[in-house]
Amino acid sequence: MHKTLIALAILSTAAQADEGMWMPQQLPQVAKQLKAAGLKLDPANLTKLTEFPMGAIVSLGGCSASFVSPQGLVATNHHCVYGSVAHNSTPERDLLANGFLAHNFGEELPAAPGSRIFVTKAVTNVSKQVVTADVAKLSGKKRSDAIEKNQKSIQAECEKDEGHRCTVSSYYGGLEYYLIKQLEIRDVRLVHAPPAGVGKFGGDTDNWMWPRHTGDYGFYRAYVSKDGKAADFSKDNVPYLPQHFLKLAKEGSKEGDFVMVLGYPGRTNRHRLPSEVSYTFDWSYPTFVKTSAESLATIADTTKDNKDTALKYASQVASINNYYKNRQGMLDSYAGSDMLKRKTAEHEALKTWINATPARKAEYAADIELVEKLIAQRDAETKRDYFLSSSKPRLLNTARTLYRLAIENTKPDAERKAGFQVRDVPRIKSSVAALVRNYDEKVDKALVMNSLTKYAALPAAQRNAEFDAVIGIKDGMNKADLQAALDVMYAGSKLGDAAERSSWIGKTPAEFKASNDAFIKAAVALYEPGMKEEAEEEELGGKLQQAYANYMKAKIAFMQSKGQAVYPDANGTLRVTFGQIAGRDHGADGTTWKAFTTVEGVVAKATGEGEFNAPKAQLAAIKAKDFGKYFDPKLKSVPLAYLATLDITGGNSGSAALNAKGEWIGLAFDGTLDSIISDWDFNKANTRDIQVDLRYILWNMKHVDHADNLLKEMNAE
Amino acid sequence: MHKTLIALAILSTAAQADEGMWMPQQLPQVAKQLKAAGLKLDPANLTKLTEFPMGAIVSLGGCSASFVSPQGLVATNHHCVYGSVAHNSTPERDLLANGFLAHNFGEELPAAPGSRIFVTKAVTNVSKQVVTADVAKLSGKKRSDAIEKNQKSIQAECEKDEGHRCTVSSYYGGLEYYLIKQLEIRDVRLVHAPPAGVGKFGGDTDNWMWPRHTGDYGFYRAYVSKDGKAADFSKDNVPYLPQHFLKLAKEGSKEGDFVMVLGYPGRTNRHRLPSEVSYTFDWSYPTFVKTSAESLATIADTTKDNKDTALKYASQVASINNYYKNRQGMLDSYAGSDMLKRKTAEHEALKTWINATPARKAEYAADIELVEKLIAQRDAETKRDYFLSSSKPRLLNTARTLYRLAIENTKPDAERKAGFQVRDVPRIKSSVAALVRNYDEKVDKALVMNSLTKYAALPAAQRNAEFDAVIGIKDGMNKADLQAALDVMYAGSKLGDAAERSSWIGKTPAEFKASNDAFIKAAVALYEPGMKEEAEEEELGGKLQQAYANYMKAKIAFMQSKGQAVYPDANGTLRVTFGQIAGRDHGADGTTWKAFTTVEGVVAKATGEGEFNAPKAQLAAIKAKDFGKYFDPKLKSVPLAYLATLDITGGNSGSAALNAKGEWIGLAFDGTLDSIISDWDFNKANTRDIQVDLRYILWNMKHVDHADNLLKEMNAE
Repeated sequence: MHKTLIALAILSTAAQADEGMWMPQQLPQVAKQLKAAGLKLDPANLTKLTEFPMGAIVSLGGCSASFVSPQGLVATNHHCVYGSVAHNSTPERDLLANGFLAHNFGEELPAAPGSRIFVTKAVTNVSKQVVTADVAKLSGKKRSDAIEKNQKSIQAECEKDEGHRCTVSSYYGGLEYYLIKQLEIRDVRLVHAPPAGVGKFGGDTDNWMWPRHTGDYGFYRAYVSKDGKAADFSKDNVPYLPQHFLKLAKEGSKEGDFVMVLGYPGRTNRHRLPSEVSYTFDWSYPTFVKTSAESLATIADTTKDNKDTALKYASQVASINNYYKNRQGMLDSYAGSDMLKRKTAEHEALKTWINATPARKAEYAADIELVEKLIAQRDAETKRDYFLSSSKPRLLNTARTLYRLAIENTKPDAERKAGFQVRDVPRIKSSVAALVRNYDEKVDKALVMNSLTKYAALPAAQRNAEFDAVIGIKDGMNKADLQAALDVMYAGSKLGDAAERSSWIGKTPAEFKASNDAFIKAAVALYEPGMKEEAEEEELGGKLQQAYANYMKAKIAFMQSKGQAVYPDANGTLRVTFGQIAGRDHGADGTTWKAFTTVEGVVAKATGEGEFNAPKAQLAAIKAKDFGKYFDPKLKSVPLAYLATLDITGGNSGSAALNAKGEWIGLAFDGTLDSIISDWDFNKANTRDIQVDLRYILWNMKHVDHADNLLKEMNAE
Repeated sequence: MHKTLIALAILSTAAQADEGMWMPQQLPQVAKQLKAAGLKLDPANLTKLTEFPMGAIVSLGGCSASFVSPQGLVATNHHCVYGSVAHNSTPERDLLANGFLAHNFGEELPAAPGSRIFVTKAVTNVSKQVVTADVAKLSGKKRSDAIEKNQKSIQAECEKDEGHRCTVSSYYGGLEYYLIKQLEIRDVRLVHAPPAGVGKFGGDTDNWMWPRHTGDYGFYRAYVSKDGKAADFSKDNVPYLPQHFLKLAKEGSKEGDFVMVLGYPGRTNRHRLPSEVSYTFDWSYPTFVKTSAESLATIADTTKDNKDTALKYASQVASINNYYKNRQGMLDSYAGSDMLKRKTAEHEALKTWINATPARKAEYAADIELVEKLIAQRDAETKRDYFLSSSKPRLLNTARTLYRLAIENTKPDAERKAGFQVRDVPRIKSSVAALVRNYDEKVDKALVMNSLTKYAALPAAQRNAEFDAVIGIKDGMNKADLQAALDVMYAGSKLGDAAERSSWIGKTPAEFKASNDAFIKAAVALYEPGMKEEAEEEELGGKLQQAYANYMKAKIAFMQSKGQAVYPDANGTLRVTFGQIAGRDHGADGTTWKAFTTVEGVVAKATGEGEFNAPKAQLAAIKAKDFGKYFDPKLKSVPLAYLATLDITGGNSGSAALNAKGEWIGLAFDGTLDSIISDWDFNKANTRDIQVDLRYILWNMKHVDHADNLLKEMNAE
C-alpha cells in the first residue's frame, strides 16, 4: 500500500501545465499536440471564426462569454455580470444578495450602461498596411502618428459595415498587426444571476484559491433591431439569433479529460526584457499593493455608514481586491523564484546569438541596446508621476475627457485622436452616464486626499507645475491646506450632477473656455501641458515600437532557431488554450489538490454570513441529497469546480470550457494564486486554472433557483 | 498522465487505518501482522514491560510520555506540560508565551502540584482474585462492595512496596481485572517547553485538524531521593536513572514506513450497546456541546480584564475547547453515518447467535435483557441530574471531599472508600493546594449561576431537595434571587483562602460539624443524602457489572466464533498500536492529505498574533533555510508533523512513536476530527493520528531555541 502511494506521488508530478494562448489560425501548427491531448474535432475547424465552435465565442470587453442558445442567451461569469447586477440593485431590491432570474424576455433588465457583446467576425493580418514601407522609415512621434493614422483608416474602412467595431491590435510588441472585426451588440440585458452567496461564494478570501466553491456564472441576452442590426436599447428590439451556440455536454467530465478554453485573455508579459521584470517586481507591484490597501481602507471607512454608497463602490472594491491579491501573489512567487536571473540569462543568450553573425548583429544589435535605454526612460517617468495620476479627482478626469472630445470634434473624423472619434462617442457617453451609479464625492475626495498628501510632499522638481497651479499646491502645505484646496475645487463644480455632466457632450471648445466650473476650468488649463506630455510620450512610443518590434523579431528568430513555436503575448484577442482536467500533487503544505470540488464543500465552508453565506435553499438541497441527474457517482456528489492545466489570464473570465467533442463543460473563472506568476513566467509545475463545472450551474439552476425556462432554452432538460 | 492520477485515487484508498489498541501481552497474537507491517524487532520483546522499549514508556496520569535520556529526561506533548508551564507563569514572566529552557538541573522548575510520572513495573491478571467464586454469587451493592474490597486489598498488598501505586483496572466491562503496579515518581520538574507560538501553534483553530503545524512537545525530568526511591520534592533529590530510555532514530521517516505508538489511551467505547450509542449521540454529546459553549463564553467574559485570572483558567479553557471540538466532531461524523443502525444490527446478530443454542441462551439471554434495562435506568438518572452536578460551587465540592476524607479517616485504611485511603491523601492535598493557581471566585460564581438558573427552573420533583435546602432554592426564584443566595453562600466561606482550605485536611468529623463556614456546613448537610445516592449507585453498579461482564463474555465468544481477535476498550492502561505513516486520498473537499507537513507551512500560516504567532527567530530560520541536518531532501524542507494509520485516543497524548527498529521518531499528539468517531466506531477510511516529527523537535531545539544541553543529553548531536 505505501509503495503505491509513493510511486504515484512521484508520477503525478508529471501532470504539468500546458503553455500556449494560441491564435485560432495558429492551431494547425499544434495539431499534433491537440490530437495527442485528446481533441476529437479537426483542429482545422477551430480556425474558422464564423463556424462552430468559434462562432459561439464572444467578448464582453474585459470578459469572455459564449452563446448557449439559439436565442442569443450568453453565458459568462457572475463577476462579469456583477456590474449589471449592482447597477440594478438598490437597498430595497438587493439583486446582488438575492440573485435575479427573468422568467421571460419581458422581465430581463438592461445591463449596466456601456455593456457590450462583441462577436468576432474576422481577423486579418494588416501588418504591412500599418507599418508600410514609408512608415518603416519614420521614427519617434512621426512614426507613432503614422501608425495611429493607418490604424484609424483601416478601422474606419472596416466600420463602414454598420454596427461593427473594428480594432487593429498589436502583436509581438508591435511586430505584427491584425484587424479584428466584431459585431458590436449594444442592447445587452441581464437574464439571470445567482445570489452572491453562490456567485461570489468565498468572496475575496477564496479568490485565487483552491479548493474553490464559487458558482461564478451569470447570463446575459443579446438584443438587436428587428432587422437584425446592432442597435441601442429599445423595447422593439428582438433577441439576436446567433449562427452558432454551444451544445451542453452529454456526459460529465472527469480527471484526465481533454479540455480547451476559448476566450479573450487580456495581457501577458512573457516576452518582456529583464529590466521590465525588475521594474515591475521590484517597484511597480510593491507600490501598487501598498496603495491598494490604502484605497480599500479609505473606501471602507467612507462608505461604512451608507449602504447606497457601499453598493456604488462594490464593483471597484471587488476589482481592487482582485488585483491586490493578484499582485501580492505574483510578488510572493517572485520572491521564491529565480525568474529575473533566468530572464537575464535568456536575454544574454539572445544577445550572444545576435552577435554570433555579422548579419544578425547588423540587423538587431543596435535596437536591443536602444530598447533598454528607452524602457529605462519610460519607467523613470512612470515612477515620477505615480502619485500625480491618482491625485486627480475623478470629475477632473471626466472634464478632461469631455474637453478633449470637444476639441477633437472640431477636426475631420479621420484626424481625431484614437478614442475620440465618432465611433467612440457612445462609449464616452455611457461612461459619463455610469458615474451616477459608481461615484460618490465624499469617497472620491478621500481617495484623492490620500494620494495628494504624498504627491504634495514631493520636492517641487518632481511635481507637475501645471497641476500644482490648478489645485493650488505650494511647497510645505499641510493636510488641512490640501483638504481646503480640494474642498474649494469640488465645491466649485456642478459636474457631480448627471444632467450637467452629460450636457457638456457636444459643446464647443469656446464654451468650455468660458465656463467657471472648477473642473472644466482645470481641464482647460491642463489641456496644453497635457498635449505636450502626450507628444513626448508619442515620441518615446514611436521609438519604442520600432526598437521593440525588432527585439521581438530577433527573439522569435532565436526561439525558432531552437525549434520553439512562438505565440504572441495575450492582447485581448481571441485565443485557445488546451490541456487536461488535473489536480496537483502539492497544495497547502501537507495537502495535494484534487481535480474536482463538490457541493459538499459548500456545506463545510458555509457560515451563514459574509463571504460564506450560502443560500439556505441550497444548503437544504445538498443536505437532502437532492442531486437529480447531476450526481457524479465517483465523486459521490455534484461536482462544483475543477482544475485544469490551461493557460489563461485576466480577460479569460467567462470563457467557455469545451470537451474533446467541442461540447460545453463549464466556465473558466480564475487561476490559483501561485499560477498567476505565469503572466510573466510560465510555471509548468504550479499552473492550474479553475472552471465552474456545468453540472453545478445546471444543478443550482434546476434544484435551487428553479430557472426551468433557461434550462429548457439551453436544451438541458 | 491522467491515467496515473486516476489510478492513484483508486489505489491509495487502500491505505486504511489499522484498528487495535493491543495490550502488550496480546502482541504475540498479532505477531504475523506486526511482521507484515514491517516491524524488525521480535514482537515477543514488546510484551516485556521492564525491558526495551516498553521500559522507557511512562504515564503522566492522563498523558503518556517516555524516558529519552539516561538521566530521567521525559519527553511528552506541550499540552501535557501546559499546566506546569502555566503554574510557573506570571504576567511578568510569561513562560507560556515565551517558552522555558533550563540550561542545567538547577534551573529546572517544580511541575504543577500533583504532577506524577508513573513507570509501569508489572501487569497481572487478577480477575479471579477480584471476582472470586464467592463474589460471583453476589449482586447489587453487595457485589460492588465486595469487588471494591478485593480491589483495595490487592492494591494495598502491592503498595507495600514503598513508592509504588497499584491499580486494579477493569477490562471488557468488568469481565477481567488486571493489577497494574507502577513506580510513582512525585518529584517532577519542568525542563523545557517551546513558546506557545510553537507548542500551541494553530491553537484551537487547528486542533483536530490537518494540515498541522503544532510543535507539541515539552520535557520533564523525574527526580527521586538519593537512595533511588520515589519521594516528595526536595532539593536533595537526584535525577531518576531509568533502566531504559528511547534512542533517537538515525534516519528520518518517510511515507509508508512502519510506525508504532506506545502509550496510555484513556477510554474508548467500541463494545457499547446500541442504547448507549443513542443516549450519547442523541442526548449527552449535544447537551455537552451546548453547555461547553456557554462555559467558554462565561469564562471569556469574566476574565477579559484580568490577565492573572485568564492565566488561571487558561488550562481549563484549553480543555473545554478541546472536548467541545471533539464532541462536535463526533456529532458531525455521527450525523452522516449509519453507526446506530449498524450497531443495532450487530447487537441483533449477537442475540440471534445467543438464542441459536439452548446452552448459550441459558448462559447469556437474561443478562443481555437486564443490561439494557439497567442502562436505561442509569441514563435517566444522569439526565435528571445534569444541571445539578454543574450547579455546585467548586469550593463546595472541595468541602465535600474534605469532609468525606475526615469521615473515612475514622475507619481502618482497608475499609475506607476507594479514593480516600491513606495512599490517596497526597493527591487530595495537591489538588486542594492547586486551587490557588486555577480558581477564581468571580469566574466560578458565574459558571455556577449559568447552570443554577437552568436547574432551578426544573420542576421540584426533578430537583434535589437536599441541595435546594442547602442553597435556599425555592420554586419560582428569579435570577436575582439565585444570585443573592449564591452571594450569601460564597461570602459565608473562608475556603477561598489556601491556608484555611489546607487546614481542614486531618480535622475530625466533629470539627466539620461545628463549623460555621457556609461550604463546610453545606458539605455536612449533603453528606447523608450523598451516602444514600452512592449506595443506590453501587446497587445499580453491582448489577450492571454482573450483567455487563456477561454481555461482554457473550460478545467476545461471538466475535471469536467469527475468527475475530478482540482487544479491550481503552481504560488508561499501556497499549500498543501499529501501522504506517500515510496520507489520505480525501481531505477538505477538493484536496487530499499528504503524510507530512513541513516548516514551510508555518510561514504560510503565521500571522504574527493570536493562535498563529510563530516566534520571529523561528520564521527567520525557516526563511534563511537554516535547516542543518534536519533537512529532508524529498520534502525539500524540515518535516514538521505526519499522519499515520494508528489507533489512538485521548490519553495517548505524548506517546512515543517508534520506527521498525524501535527507535524514537516523534510524539503522537492528536487525531483528525473525522477520526475521533473511532472512539465509538472505528472508521478504517478516515482514521489518521498526528505525530510531531522528531526532526522538527530537534531542529527547533537546535536552530531556534538553542537547547544544546538537552540535545547533548539525548545524544542528538
